Amino acid sequence: MECRIVLEFHDLLYIINLLSMKKSGGVILLPLPKKYFLTAATSEGKSELTAFDGALLKARVGNTNLIRVSSILPPGCEYEPDLVIPPGSLLPIAYGYIVSANPGEKIAAAVGVGIKKNSFGVIMEFEGTCSKEEAEEKVTAMVEEAFEMREIELDEIKVASCEHVVQEIGCAFAAVPLWY
Amino acid sequence: MECRIVLEFHDLLYIINLLSMKKSGGVILLPLPKKYFLTAATSEGKSELTAFDGALLKARVGNTNLIRVSSILPPGCEYEPDLVIPPGSLLPIAYGYIVSANPGEKIAAAVGVGIKKNSFGVIMEFEGTCSKEEAEEKVTAMVEEAFEMREIELDEIKVASCEHVVQEIGCAFAAVPLWY
Amino acid sequence: MECRIVLEFHDLLYIINLLSMKKSGGVILLPLPKKYFLTAATSEGKSELTAFDGALLKARVGNTNLIRVSSILPPGCEYEPDLVIPPGSLLPIAYGYIVSANPGEKIAAAVGVGIKKNSFGVIMEFEGTCSKEEAEEKVTAMVEEAFEMREIELDEIKVASCEHVVQEIGCAFAAVPLWY
Repeated sequence: MECRIVLEFHDLLYIINLLSMKKSGGVILLPLPKKYFLTAATSEGKSELTAFDGALLKARVGNTNLIRVSSILPPGCEYEPDLVIPPGSLLPIAYGYIVSANPGEKIAAAVGVGIKKNSFGVIMEFEGTCSKEEAEEKVTAMVEEAFEMREIELDEIKVASCEHVVQEIGCAFAAVPLWY
Repeated sequence: MECRIVLEFHDLLYIINLLSMKKSGGVILLPLPKKYFLTAATSEGKSELTAFDGALLKARVGNTNLIRVSSILPPGCEYEPDLVIPPGSLLPIAYGYIVSANPGEKIAAAVGVGIKKNSFGVIMEFEGTCSKEEAEEKVTAMVEEAFEMREIELDEIKVASCEHVVQEIGCAFAAVPLWY
Repeated sequence: MECRIVLEFHDLLYIINLLSMKKSGGVILLPLPKKYFLTAATSEGKSELTAFDGALLKARVGNTNLIRVSSILPPGCEYEPDLVIPPGSLLPIAYGYIVSANPGEKIAAAVGVGIKKNSFGVIMEFEGTCSKEEAEEKVTAMVEEAFEMREIELDEIKVASCEHVVQEIGCAFAAVPLWY
Protein backbone atom coordinates (compact mmCIF):
# COMPACT_ATOMS: atom_id res chain seq x y z
CA MET A 1 0.00 0.00 0.00
CA GLU A 2 1.32 3.40 -0.95
CA CYS A 3 0.96 6.27 1.44
CA ARG A 4 1.22 9.99 0.82
CA ILE A 5 2.51 12.00 3.80
CA VAL A 6 1.01 15.44 4.24
CA LEU A 7 3.45 17.69 6.02
CA GLU A 8 3.06 21.22 7.26
CA PHE A 9 5.96 23.62 7.12
CA HIS A 10 7.15 23.08 10.68
CA ASP A 11 7.04 19.31 10.21
CA LEU A 12 9.13 19.69 7.09
CA LEU A 13 11.59 21.81 9.10
CA TYR A 14 11.76 19.00 11.61
CA ILE A 15 12.56 16.40 8.94
CA ILE A 16 15.28 18.71 7.61
CA ASN A 17 16.61 18.97 11.15
CA LEU A 18 16.66 15.19 11.45
CA LEU A 19 18.46 14.94 8.13
CA SER A 20 20.99 17.54 9.21
CA MET A 21 21.80 15.36 12.23
CA LYS A 22 23.29 12.72 10.03
CA LYS A 23 26.92 12.52 9.15
CA SER A 24 28.22 10.60 6.13
CA GLY A 25 26.69 7.16 6.19
CA GLY A 26 23.48 8.23 7.87
CA VAL A 27 24.70 8.08 11.46
CA ILE A 28 22.49 9.05 14.40
CA LEU A 29 24.02 10.58 17.53
CA LEU A 30 22.80 11.58 20.95
CA PRO A 31 21.46 15.08 20.19
CA LEU A 32 23.68 18.04 21.14
CA PRO A 33 22.14 20.26 23.83
CA LYS A 34 21.20 23.75 22.60
CA LYS A 35 20.25 25.66 25.78
CA TYR A 36 21.50 25.92 29.34
CA PHE A 37 21.03 27.71 32.62
CA LEU A 38 22.75 27.83 36.01
CA THR A 39 21.00 26.92 39.21
CA ALA A 40 21.82 26.33 42.88
CA ALA A 41 19.73 25.45 45.93
CA THR A 42 19.84 23.83 49.34
CA SER A 43 17.46 21.65 51.32
CA GLU A 44 16.96 19.60 54.45
CA GLY A 45 15.58 16.05 54.26
CA LYS A 46 14.91 13.08 56.51
CA SER A 47 17.55 11.06 54.63
CA GLU A 48 20.55 11.94 52.47
CA LEU A 49 18.74 11.12 49.24
CA THR A 50 15.59 13.08 50.12
CA ALA A 51 17.74 16.09 51.14
CA PHE A 52 19.33 15.82 47.68
CA ASP A 53 15.86 15.45 46.12
CA GLY A 54 14.64 18.57 47.96
CA ALA A 55 17.59 20.60 46.68
CA LEU A 56 16.91 19.43 43.11
CA LEU A 57 13.28 20.52 43.45
CA LYS A 58 14.24 24.01 44.62
CA ALA A 59 16.78 24.17 41.79
CA ARG A 60 13.94 23.47 39.29
CA VAL A 61 15.29 20.08 38.12
CA GLY A 62 13.68 17.84 40.76
CA ASN A 63 11.09 16.26 38.49
CA THR A 64 13.53 15.23 35.76
CA ASN A 65 15.91 12.33 35.23
CA LEU A 66 19.37 13.78 35.77
CA ILE A 67 22.08 12.28 33.57
CA ARG A 68 25.34 13.56 35.03
CA VAL A 69 27.86 14.73 32.43
CA SER A 70 31.45 15.83 32.69
CA SER A 71 31.26 18.80 31.51
CA ILE A 72 31.54 20.91 28.39
CA LEU A 73 29.19 23.66 27.19
CA PRO A 74 28.45 22.58 23.60
CA PRO A 75 29.29 25.13 20.86
CA GLY A 76 26.25 27.32 20.11
CA CYS A 77 24.51 26.38 23.37
CA GLU A 78 22.49 29.43 24.44
CA TYR A 79 21.87 30.81 27.93
CA GLU A 80 18.17 30.67 28.76
CA PRO A 81 17.63 31.31 32.48
CA ASP A 82 13.88 30.63 32.49
CA LEU A 83 13.97 27.21 30.86
CA VAL A 84 11.30 24.77 32.04
CA ILE A 85 12.20 21.09 31.67
CA PRO A 86 9.22 18.73 31.16
CA PRO A 87 8.72 16.17 34.00
CA GLY A 88 10.49 12.85 33.50
CA SER A 89 12.87 14.16 30.80
CA LEU A 90 16.34 12.67 30.44
CA LEU A 91 18.35 15.78 31.32
CA PRO A 92 22.10 16.02 30.67
CA ILE A 93 23.45 18.08 33.57
CA ALA A 94 26.78 19.01 35.13
CA TYR A 95 26.57 19.37 38.90
CA GLY A 96 28.35 19.47 42.22
CA TYR A 97 26.69 18.63 45.54
CA ILE A 98 27.41 17.87 49.14
CA VAL A 99 25.21 16.13 51.70
CA SER A 100 25.96 16.40 55.42
CA ALA A 101 24.42 14.86 58.54
CA ASN A 102 26.50 17.03 60.91
CA PRO A 103 24.18 19.62 62.50
CA GLY A 104 25.77 23.08 62.52
CA GLU A 105 28.14 22.35 59.63
CA LYS A 106 28.24 24.92 56.82
CA ILE A 107 28.15 23.35 53.35
CA ALA A 108 28.35 24.98 49.93
CA ALA A 109 28.24 24.12 46.23
CA ALA A 110 29.09 26.14 43.12
CA VAL A 111 29.24 25.77 39.36
CA GLY A 112 31.12 27.94 36.90
CA VAL A 113 30.71 28.15 33.14
CA GLY A 114 33.64 29.51 31.15
CA ILE A 115 32.46 31.00 27.87
CA LYS A 116 34.38 31.74 24.67
CA LYS A 117 32.58 33.22 21.65
CA ASN A 118 32.31 30.86 18.65
CA SER A 119 33.70 27.96 20.66
CA PHE A 120 32.63 25.39 23.19
CA GLY A 121 32.83 26.35 26.87
CA VAL A 122 33.98 24.52 30.00
CA ILE A 123 31.89 23.82 33.12
CA MET A 124 33.45 23.26 36.54
CA GLU A 125 31.77 22.12 39.75
CA PHE A 126 32.80 22.51 43.38
CA GLU A 127 31.40 21.40 46.73
CA GLY A 128 32.80 21.63 50.24
CA THR A 129 32.34 22.53 53.88
CA CYS A 130 32.88 26.23 53.30
CA SER A 131 31.03 29.45 52.47
CA LYS A 132 29.29 30.30 49.23
CA GLU A 133 31.97 32.92 48.49
CA GLU A 134 34.80 30.44 48.95
CA ALA A 135 33.03 27.95 46.68
CA GLU A 136 32.67 30.65 44.01
CA GLU A 137 36.36 31.55 44.22
CA LYS A 138 37.39 27.91 43.92
CA VAL A 139 35.15 27.18 40.96
CA THR A 140 36.25 30.37 39.18
CA ALA A 141 39.92 29.39 39.58
CA MET A 142 39.09 25.93 38.20
CA VAL A 143 37.42 27.40 35.11
CA GLU A 144 40.46 29.65 34.55
CA GLU A 145 42.81 26.67 34.87
CA ALA A 146 40.69 24.68 32.40
CA PHE A 147 40.99 27.49 29.84
CA GLU A 148 44.74 27.80 30.41
CA MET A 149 45.16 24.05 29.85
CA ARG A 150 43.32 24.41 26.54
CA GLU A 151 45.17 27.62 25.61
CA ILE A 152 41.85 29.34 24.93
CA GLU A 153 41.09 32.91 25.97
CA LEU A 154 38.17 33.32 28.36
CA ASP A 155 35.44 35.84 27.39
CA GLU A 156 33.15 35.47 30.40
CA ILE A 157 32.46 33.35 33.48
CA LYS A 158 28.96 32.74 34.83
CA VAL A 159 28.76 31.38 38.39
CA ALA A 160 25.94 30.05 40.58
CA SER A 161 26.37 28.99 44.20
CA CYS A 162 24.60 28.33 47.48
CA GLU A 163 25.42 27.62 51.12
CA HIS A 164 23.55 26.01 53.99
CA VAL A 165 23.99 25.42 57.71
CA VAL A 166 22.92 21.85 58.37
CA GLN A 167 20.02 21.35 60.82
CA GLU A 168 19.72 17.56 60.68
CA ILE A 169 20.53 16.30 57.19
CA GLY A 170 21.28 18.97 54.60
CA CYS A 171 22.29 19.23 50.95
CA ALA A 172 23.84 22.00 48.84
CA PHE A 173 23.52 21.55 45.09
CA ALA A 174 24.72 23.63 42.11
CA ALA A 175 24.20 22.69 38.47
CA VAL A 176 24.27 23.55 34.80
CA PRO A 177 21.38 21.75 33.06
CA LEU A 178 21.90 21.28 29.29
CA TRP A 179 18.71 21.21 27.31
CA TYR A 180 17.10 21.38 23.87
CA MET B 1 15.66 13.16 -8.63
CA GLU B 2 12.28 12.82 -7.01
CA CYS B 3 11.56 9.88 -4.77
CA ARG B 4 8.28 8.48 -3.54
CA ILE B 5 8.46 6.81 -0.13
CA VAL B 6 6.22 3.83 0.38
CA LEU B 7 5.30 3.51 4.01
CA GLU B 8 3.38 0.83 5.82
CA PHE B 9 1.13 1.72 8.68
CA HIS B 10 3.67 1.01 11.45
CA ASP B 11 6.31 3.06 9.62
CA LEU B 12 3.86 5.92 9.40
CA LEU B 13 3.21 5.59 13.13
CA TYR B 14 6.95 5.82 13.65
CA ILE B 15 7.22 9.02 11.62
CA ILE B 16 4.32 10.48 13.62
CA ASN B 17 6.17 9.46 16.77
CA LEU B 18 9.28 11.25 15.53
CA LEU B 19 7.23 14.32 14.71
CA SER B 20 5.60 14.27 18.13
CA MET B 21 9.09 14.41 19.68
CA LYS B 22 9.66 17.86 18.34
CA LYS B 23 8.90 21.06 20.16
CA SER B 24 8.46 24.41 18.42
CA GLY B 25 11.44 24.95 16.17
CA GLY B 26 11.95 21.30 15.35
CA VAL B 27 13.99 20.37 18.39
CA ILE B 28 15.16 16.81 19.06
CA LEU B 29 15.41 15.52 22.63
CA LEU B 30 16.66 12.41 24.34
CA PRO B 31 13.61 10.14 23.99
CA LEU B 32 11.36 9.76 27.02
CA PRO B 33 11.27 6.20 28.43
CA LYS B 34 7.89 4.46 28.04
CA LYS B 35 8.27 1.22 30.05
CA TYR B 36 9.83 0.16 33.33
CA PHE B 37 10.28 -2.72 35.70
CA LEU B 38 11.76 -3.30 39.15
CA THR B 39 14.56 -5.72 39.77
CA ALA B 40 16.94 -6.73 42.58
CA ALA B 41 19.69 -9.34 42.86
CA THR B 42 22.89 -10.20 44.70
CA SER B 43 26.16 -11.83 43.69
CA GLU B 44 29.65 -12.77 44.78
CA GLY B 45 32.67 -11.91 42.61
CA LYS B 46 36.46 -12.09 42.72
CA SER B 47 36.61 -8.26 42.66
CA GLU B 48 34.19 -5.47 43.59
CA LEU B 49 33.38 -4.70 39.95
CA THR B 50 32.79 -8.34 38.98
CA ALA B 51 30.55 -8.82 42.05
CA PHE B 52 28.57 -5.79 40.79
CA ASP B 53 28.58 -7.26 37.26
CA GLY B 54 27.28 -10.59 38.59
CA ALA B 55 24.41 -8.86 40.40
CA LEU B 56 23.51 -6.94 37.22
CA LEU B 57 23.41 -10.21 35.27
CA LYS B 58 21.07 -11.84 37.79
CA ALA B 59 18.94 -8.67 37.73
CA ARG B 60 18.58 -9.05 33.91
CA VAL B 61 20.48 -5.84 33.02
CA GLY B 62 24.05 -7.23 32.96
CA ASN B 63 24.51 -7.12 29.20
CA THR B 64 23.43 -3.51 28.78
CA ASN B 65 25.09 -0.13 29.18
CA LEU B 66 23.64 1.32 32.37
CA ILE B 67 23.20 5.11 32.33
CA ARG B 68 22.42 6.02 35.93
CA VAL B 69 19.60 8.55 36.31
CA SER B 70 18.25 10.42 39.29
CA SER B 71 15.21 9.40 39.31
CA ILE B 72 11.72 10.17 38.09
CA LEU B 73 9.21 7.80 36.52
CA PRO B 74 8.21 9.63 33.32
CA PRO B 75 4.48 10.36 32.89
CA GLY B 76 2.78 7.54 30.97
CA CYS B 77 5.64 5.11 31.62
CA GLU B 78 4.09 1.64 31.87
CA TYR B 79 4.99 -1.25 34.16
CA GLU B 80 6.18 -4.22 32.11
CA PRO B 81 7.80 -6.82 34.38
CA ASP B 82 9.00 -9.14 31.60
CA LEU B 83 10.87 -6.55 29.54
CA VAL B 84 13.95 -7.85 27.73
CA ILE B 85 16.61 -5.23 26.97
CA PRO B 86 18.73 -5.92 23.85
CA PRO B 87 22.47 -6.45 24.60
CA GLY B 88 24.62 -3.32 24.48
CA SER B 89 21.65 -0.91 24.75
CA LEU B 90 22.11 2.46 26.44
CA LEU B 91 19.72 1.90 29.36
CA PRO B 92 18.55 4.76 31.59
CA ILE B 93 18.25 3.23 35.05
CA ALA B 94 17.80 4.32 38.66
CA TYR B 95 19.62 2.07 41.09
CA GLY B 96 21.08 1.58 44.53
CA TYR B 97 23.88 -0.87 45.31
CA ILE B 98 26.37 -1.84 47.97
CA VAL B 99 29.58 -3.83 47.58
CA SER B 100 31.29 -5.33 50.63
CA ALA B 101 34.52 -7.26 51.13
CA ASN B 102 33.74 -8.06 54.79
CA PRO B 103 32.88 -11.78 55.04
CA GLY B 104 29.80 -12.38 57.20
CA GLU B 105 28.41 -8.87 56.72
CA LYS B 106 24.74 -8.64 55.72
CA ILE B 107 24.10 -6.16 52.91
CA ALA B 108 20.85 -5.07 51.29
CA ALA B 109 19.51 -2.84 48.51
CA ALA B 110 16.01 -1.64 47.69
CA VAL B 111 14.20 0.58 45.20
CA GLY B 112 10.76 2.10 45.54
CA VAL B 113 8.57 3.61 42.84
CA GLY B 114 5.89 6.05 43.97
CA ILE B 115 3.07 6.14 41.46
CA LYS B 116 0.36 8.76 40.91
CA LYS B 117 -2.22 8.32 38.14
CA ASN B 118 -1.93 10.81 35.25
CA SER B 119 1.33 12.19 36.65
CA PHE B 120 5.01 11.41 36.79
CA GLY B 121 6.23 9.21 39.65
CA VAL B 122 9.26 9.30 41.94
CA ILE B 123 11.90 6.59 42.31
CA MET B 124 14.00 6.21 45.46
CA GLU B 125 17.00 3.95 46.08
CA PHE B 126 18.50 2.62 49.30
CA GLU B 127 21.49 0.46 50.18
CA GLY B 128 23.03 -0.44 53.53
CA THR B 129 24.37 -3.08 55.88
CA CYS B 130 20.95 -4.23 57.01
CA SER B 131 18.17 -6.69 56.17
CA LYS B 132 15.97 -6.65 53.11
CA GLU B 133 12.97 -5.69 55.28
CA GLU B 134 14.80 -2.71 56.76
CA ALA B 135 15.86 -1.58 53.28
CA GLU B 136 12.23 -1.79 52.11
CA GLU B 137 11.00 0.26 55.07
CA LYS B 138 13.63 2.93 54.46
CA VAL B 139 12.95 3.23 50.74
CA THR B 140 9.19 3.34 51.32
CA ALA B 141 9.60 6.21 53.79
CA MET B 142 11.79 8.02 51.25
CA VAL B 143 9.16 7.71 48.53
CA GLU B 144 6.51 9.02 50.93
CA GLU B 145 8.73 11.99 51.85
CA ALA B 146 9.33 12.73 48.16
CA PHE B 147 5.57 12.88 47.54
CA GLU B 148 5.01 15.08 50.61
CA MET B 149 7.70 17.49 49.37
CA ARG B 150 5.88 17.73 46.03
CA GLU B 151 2.45 17.93 47.68
CA ILE B 152 1.21 15.09 45.48
CA GLU B 153 -0.99 12.27 46.74
CA LEU B 154 0.47 8.78 46.42
CA ASP B 155 -1.66 6.12 44.68
CA GLU B 156 0.69 3.15 44.96
CA ILE B 157 4.24 2.14 45.86
CA LYS B 158 6.08 -0.73 44.16
CA VAL B 159 9.18 -2.03 45.94
CA ALA B 160 11.96 -4.48 45.03
CA SER B 161 14.74 -5.50 47.39
CA CYS B 162 17.40 -8.11 48.12
CA GLU B 163 19.86 -9.03 50.86
CA HIS B 164 23.07 -11.03 50.97
CA VAL B 165 25.54 -12.32 53.54
CA VAL B 166 29.00 -11.66 52.14
CA GLN B 167 31.24 -14.71 51.60
CA GLU B 168 34.32 -12.98 50.15
CA ILE B 169 33.25 -10.02 48.02
CA GLY B 170 29.52 -9.48 47.65
CA CYS B 171 27.12 -7.04 46.01
CA ALA B 172 23.43 -6.22 46.56
CA PHE B 173 21.78 -4.31 43.72
CA ALA B 174 18.22 -2.96 43.24
CA ALA B 175 17.07 -1.02 40.20
CA VAL B 176 14.33 0.50 38.11
CA PRO B 177 15.31 0.22 34.42
CA LEU B 178 13.52 2.74 32.16
CA TRP B 179 13.02 1.55 28.64
CA TYR B 180 11.23 2.07 25.32
CA MET C 1 -1.47 21.89 2.12
CA GLU C 2 0.20 18.87 0.60
CA CYS C 3 3.95 18.72 0.32
CA ARG C 4 6.15 16.48 -1.77
CA ILE C 5 9.53 15.69 -0.22
CA VAL C 6 12.44 15.34 -2.63
CA LEU C 7 15.05 13.03 -1.19
CA GLU C 8 18.48 12.12 -2.48
CA PHE C 9 19.78 8.64 -2.04
CA HIS C 10 21.80 9.29 1.14
CA ASP C 11 18.81 11.04 2.72
CA LEU C 12 16.69 8.04 1.87
CA LEU C 13 19.31 5.81 3.50
CA TYR C 14 19.07 7.96 6.58
CA ILE C 15 15.29 7.61 6.76
CA ILE C 16 15.69 3.85 6.39
CA ASN C 17 18.21 3.99 9.21
CA LEU C 18 15.72 5.87 11.35
CA LEU C 19 13.03 3.37 10.52
CA SER C 20 15.33 0.46 11.36
CA MET C 21 15.77 1.96 14.83
CA LYS C 22 12.16 1.32 15.63
CA LYS C 23 10.84 -1.77 17.26
CA SER C 24 7.21 -2.88 16.94
CA GLY C 25 5.01 0.04 17.83
CA GLY C 26 7.30 2.69 16.40
CA VAL C 27 9.53 3.11 19.43
CA ILE C 28 12.57 5.37 19.50
CA LEU C 29 15.60 4.37 21.57
CA LEU C 30 18.87 5.93 22.57
CA PRO C 31 21.02 5.08 19.54
CA LEU C 32 23.40 2.12 19.87
CA PRO C 33 27.09 3.11 19.65
CA LYS C 34 28.85 1.78 16.54
CA LYS C 35 32.54 2.60 17.12
CA TYR C 36 34.98 2.54 20.01
CA PHE C 37 38.58 3.05 21.00
CA LEU C 38 40.71 2.60 24.11
CA THR C 39 42.57 5.47 25.71
CA ALA C 40 44.55 6.20 28.88
CA ALA C 41 46.38 9.27 30.15
CA THR C 42 47.58 11.02 33.31
CA SER C 43 47.80 14.64 34.40
CA GLU C 44 48.59 17.00 37.23
CA GLY C 45 46.20 19.81 38.17
CA LYS C 46 45.77 22.52 40.78
CA SER C 47 42.60 20.78 42.04
CA GLU C 48 41.25 17.23 41.83
CA LEU C 49 38.73 18.13 39.12
CA THR C 50 41.26 20.01 36.95
CA ALA C 51 43.72 17.08 37.28
CA PHE C 52 40.88 14.86 36.02
CA ASP C 53 40.12 17.40 33.26
CA GLY C 54 43.78 17.42 32.20
CA ALA C 55 43.85 13.63 31.96
CA LEU C 56 40.67 13.67 29.83
CA LEU C 57 42.27 16.21 27.48
CA LYS C 58 45.38 14.04 27.00
CA ALA C 59 43.12 11.05 26.47
CA ARG C 60 41.37 12.94 23.61
CA VAL C 61 37.96 13.14 25.32
CA GLY C 62 38.46 16.37 27.31
CA ASN C 63 36.21 18.56 25.20
CA THR C 64 33.21 16.26 25.28
CA ASN C 65 30.39 15.56 27.73
CA LEU C 66 31.21 12.19 29.26
CA ILE C 67 28.18 10.05 30.09
CA ARG C 68 29.55 7.21 32.19
CA VAL C 69 28.17 3.78 31.28
CA SER C 70 28.52 0.39 32.89
CA SER C 71 29.84 -1.26 30.48
CA ILE C 72 29.14 -3.48 27.51
CA LEU C 73 30.63 -3.28 24.02
CA PRO C 74 27.51 -3.26 21.80
CA PRO C 75 27.28 -6.02 19.17
CA GLY C 76 28.82 -4.86 15.87
CA CYS C 77 30.68 -1.98 17.53
CA GLU C 78 33.92 -1.49 15.56
CA TYR C 79 37.39 -0.61 16.78
CA GLU C 80 38.48 2.73 15.33
CA PRO C 81 41.58 4.00 17.17
CA ASP C 82 41.74 7.40 15.45
CA LEU C 83 38.17 8.50 16.18
CA VAL C 84 37.72 12.24 16.72
CA ILE C 85 34.72 13.21 18.86
CA PRO C 86 33.19 16.64 18.08
CA PRO C 87 33.44 19.17 20.97
CA GLY C 88 30.46 19.20 23.32
CA SER C 89 29.13 15.79 22.20
CA LEU C 90 27.26 13.59 24.65
CA LEU C 91 29.72 10.69 24.75
CA PRO C 92 28.80 7.31 26.27
CA ILE C 93 32.04 6.07 27.87
CA ALA C 94 33.23 3.38 30.28
CA TYR C 95 36.11 4.53 32.45
CA GLY C 96 38.19 4.04 35.57
CA TYR C 97 40.14 6.82 37.26
CA ILE C 98 41.99 7.70 40.42
CA VAL C 99 42.87 11.14 41.76
CA SER C 100 45.50 11.52 44.50
CA ALA C 101 46.83 14.49 46.46
CA ASN C 102 49.64 12.44 48.07
CA PRO C 103 52.95 13.55 46.50
CA GLY C 104 55.16 10.56 45.62
CA GLU C 105 52.25 8.09 45.41
CA LYS C 106 52.11 5.91 42.29
CA ILE C 107 48.63 5.69 40.77
CA ALA C 108 47.38 3.68 37.79
CA ALA C 109 44.25 3.07 35.74
CA ALA C 110 43.38 0.44 33.15
CA VAL C 111 40.50 -0.65 30.95
CA GLY C 112 40.02 -4.00 29.26
CA VAL C 113 37.64 -4.92 26.44
CA GLY C 114 36.73 -8.58 26.08
CA ILE C 115 35.72 -9.34 22.52
CA LYS C 116 33.74 -12.26 21.11
CA LYS C 117 32.98 -12.44 17.37
CA ASN C 118 29.29 -12.00 16.46
CA SER C 119 28.42 -11.08 20.04
CA PHE C 120 28.51 -8.16 22.41
CA GLY C 121 31.70 -7.66 24.46
CA VAL C 122 32.39 -6.75 28.08
CA ILE C 123 34.37 -3.75 29.32
CA MET C 124 36.07 -3.70 32.72
CA GLU C 125 37.77 -0.79 34.49
CA PHE C 126 40.39 -0.73 37.24
CA GLU C 127 42.14 1.99 39.22
CA GLY C 128 44.49 1.80 42.18
CA THR C 129 47.73 2.83 43.86
CA CYS C 130 49.86 0.41 41.89
CA SER C 131 51.84 0.08 38.66
CA LYS C 132 50.49 0.10 35.14
CA GLU C 133 51.41 -3.61 34.79
CA GLU C 134 49.50 -4.56 37.93
CA ALA C 135 46.46 -2.57 36.73
CA GLU C 136 46.59 -4.42 33.39
CA GLU C 137 46.76 -7.81 35.13
CA LYS C 138 43.80 -6.96 37.36
CA VAL C 139 41.60 -5.67 34.55
CA THR C 140 42.45 -8.67 32.36
CA ALA C 141 41.44 -11.07 35.14
CA MET C 142 38.19 -9.10 35.56
CA VAL C 143 37.36 -9.42 31.86
CA GLU C 144 38.07 -13.17 32.02
CA GLU C 145 35.80 -13.52 35.06
CA ALA C 146 33.04 -11.57 33.28
CA PHE C 147 33.20 -13.98 30.32
CA GLU C 148 33.21 -17.03 32.62
CA MET C 149 30.11 -15.69 34.41
CA ARG C 150 28.37 -15.37 31.04
CA GLU C 151 29.69 -18.75 29.81
CA ILE C 152 30.98 -17.09 26.64
CA GLU C 153 34.33 -17.91 25.07
CA LEU C 154 36.75 -15.00 24.81
CA ASP C 155 38.32 -14.32 21.38
CA GLU C 156 40.51 -11.33 22.26
CA ILE C 157 41.24 -8.79 24.99
CA LYS C 158 42.32 -5.22 24.27
CA VAL C 159 43.85 -3.30 27.18
CA ALA C 160 44.90 0.32 27.74
CA SER C 161 46.58 1.59 30.90
CA CYS C 162 48.67 4.35 32.40
CA GLU C 163 50.55 5.15 35.62
CA HIS C 164 51.70 8.34 37.29
CA VAL C 165 53.77 9.39 40.28
CA VAL C 166 51.88 12.23 41.95
CA GLN C 167 53.71 15.57 42.21
CA GLU C 168 50.98 17.66 43.89
CA ILE C 169 47.55 16.54 42.68
CA GLY C 170 47.54 13.83 40.02
CA CYS C 171 45.03 11.77 38.06
CA ALA C 172 45.27 8.50 36.12
CA PHE C 173 42.42 7.84 33.70
CA ALA C 174 41.63 4.92 31.35
CA ALA C 175 38.55 4.71 29.15
CA VAL C 176 36.60 3.10 26.35
CA PRO C 177 34.62 5.81 24.52
CA LEU C 178 31.60 4.47 22.58
CA TRP C 179 30.70 6.50 19.54
CA TYR C 180 28.74 6.68 16.29
